[in-house]
Amino acid sequence: MTGKPIDGGAGVVSRVVDVADPADPRLDDFRDLNSVDRRPDLPSGKGLVIAEGVLVVQRMLASRFTPRALLGTDRRLTELGADLDGVDAPFYRVSAEVMAQVVGFHLNRGVLASASRAPELTVSQVLDGAATVVVLEGVNDHENLGSVFRNAAGLGVDAVVFGSGCADPLYRRAVRVSMGHALLVPFARAANWPGDLEVLRDKGFQILAMTPDPQAATLAEALPPRAGQPVAILVGAEGPGLQEHTMRASDQRVRIPMSRGTDSLNVATAAALAFYERDRLRTTVST
Amino acid sequence: MTGKPIDGGAGVVSRVVDVADPADPRLDDFRDLNSVDRRPDLPSGKGLVIAEGVLVVQRMLASRFTPRALLGTDRRLTELGADLDGVDAPFYRVSAEVMAQVVGFHLNRGVLASASRAPELTVSQVLDGAATVVVLEGVNDHENLGSVFRNAAGLGVDAVVFGSGCADPLYRRAVRVSMGHALLVPFARAANWPGDLEVLRDKGFQILAMTPDPQAATLAEALPPRAGQPVAILVGAEGPGLQEHTMRASDQRVRIPMSRGTDSLNVATAAALAFYERDRLRTTVST
Repeated sequence: MTGKPIDGGAGVVSRVVDVADPADPRLDDFRDLNSVDRRPDLPSGKGLVIAEGVLVVQRMLASRFTPRALLGTDRRLTELGADLDGVDAPFYRVSAEVMAQVVGFHLNRGVLASASRAPELTVSQVLDGAATVVVLEGVNDHENLGSVFRNAAGLGVDAVVFGSGCADPLYRRAVRVSMGHALLVPFARAANWPGDLEVLRDKGFQILAMTPDPQAATLAEALPPRAGQPVAILVGAEGPGLQEHTMRASDQRVRIPMSRGTDSLNVATAAALAFYERDRLRTTVST
Repeated sequence: MTGKPIDGGAGVVSRVVDVADPADPRLDDFRDLNSVDRRPDLPSGKGLVIAEGVLVVQRMLASRFTPRALLGTDRRLTELGADLDGVDAPFYRVSAEVMAQVVGFHLNRGVLASASRAPELTVSQVLDGAATVVVLEGVNDHENLGSVFRNAAGLGVDAVVFGSGCADPLYRRAVRVSMGHALLVPFARAANWPGDLEVLRDKGFQILAMTPDPQAATLAEALPPRAGQPVAILVGAEGPGLQEHTMRASDQRVRIPMSRGTDSLNVATAAALAFYERDRLRTTVST
């Protein structure tokens, strides 16, 4: 996907626009990316979705989030090449210096794309056709949330459902850590929590709640017997874990076999182990 | 381990020393923690090991790294309580403001301990009695390295061996992300790389090299048949992976079954999945 040289003019990319003035208002989608109160990905502000770097921009182009503008250096324009065919958004071509002045720091990924938020999906929508989903409660850290998406994408999980207390998966940092998979793996927010677990149950999902409780079944005991059924893996934040009333709404409590004298694993790592156990006997590459 | 109130004077802790002057040279072990060139954990400088927060300080106290000084607020001194019994190092008790001035930022973990580097262990030493070890090549990111230690401790891995190109596991950030397990899980640096893989082989270890290659055996195919044998899991950095000549020195190449259209997982997550597969049938808590 990379390395194909293009002429950088009209034809291959619909609109390449050279910009030399960092104050140009056409670059406002990308201004002050690290500003606490003006950053363009603040849901209370512009609420834009920002993709960074060639790989994540490619994934945005393949997602339901349609770019409205791109900003980057000539080198990254060349790397994107034919991926930009048919993209109906301007590519603002700038020097690395202008780029740094616009975003507020040196961004060595060299290319950004902005998109408006796509309409939110419902829980019922993301469950359609899904065999494995992860349901998160209290995961309020953008890096952990991004890692959950990356692990979900890599390990065969079809969708992510948010219970209460979760961070925004479309925050720039979450999108970056997810390697762009926050834009590709469907997600939905539960309108009622934990009441919406009934929506999963109505669709035939078995709901397994992860806990450090040594009385719980291990993943290897709980998951293989359910290989033929849809499964939802319920994961709480590191530290507090799932709320007790959420646990009670599950079908079974499950745990990772852990060594004595250690505490919980990172939440995204714990989730990855459950995804792996769900999928471990697959020997061929799946879509 | 926490919450036991102590009087904060002589008796329970050998030496509590109140310090009001942030310039006091007795606090120098903890000065300018974030400074690029003066930070006390620089191997080229003081080379100290720094533990942050009650949990990690407790783990340092249980490790082969003997504290030479502690710095903290009265609240954290109280939380540490009896853990400090018999500790032959001064606890410099300061206000949160003085602490911030010394370390250079507000550190809300509230307590630090410093230790000299313990003598390095040899590869042969860390293999003694070990059934599962992880061998890293090119893992040059402190957070990833810290996460590998945390995952190793939680998932039954006995030791960590460093091939070429790895970061320093005793850097402050690595120790923090490891939750202190970088101080507890034995590690050694290979003197000859990859030649020292022969030391593992001589001790009866089967060496499995992780790769994204779809031709490789899956973890679920490769690990269970070796349940009764010592195993070394060889992991390279995200992106480049293991060098080809390192791969060739292994007994078998193994992979995680991944979904199409995704690339590698984070290196610490990939390692965690191998550790999990190695240990997944354990149903009771091990030491």
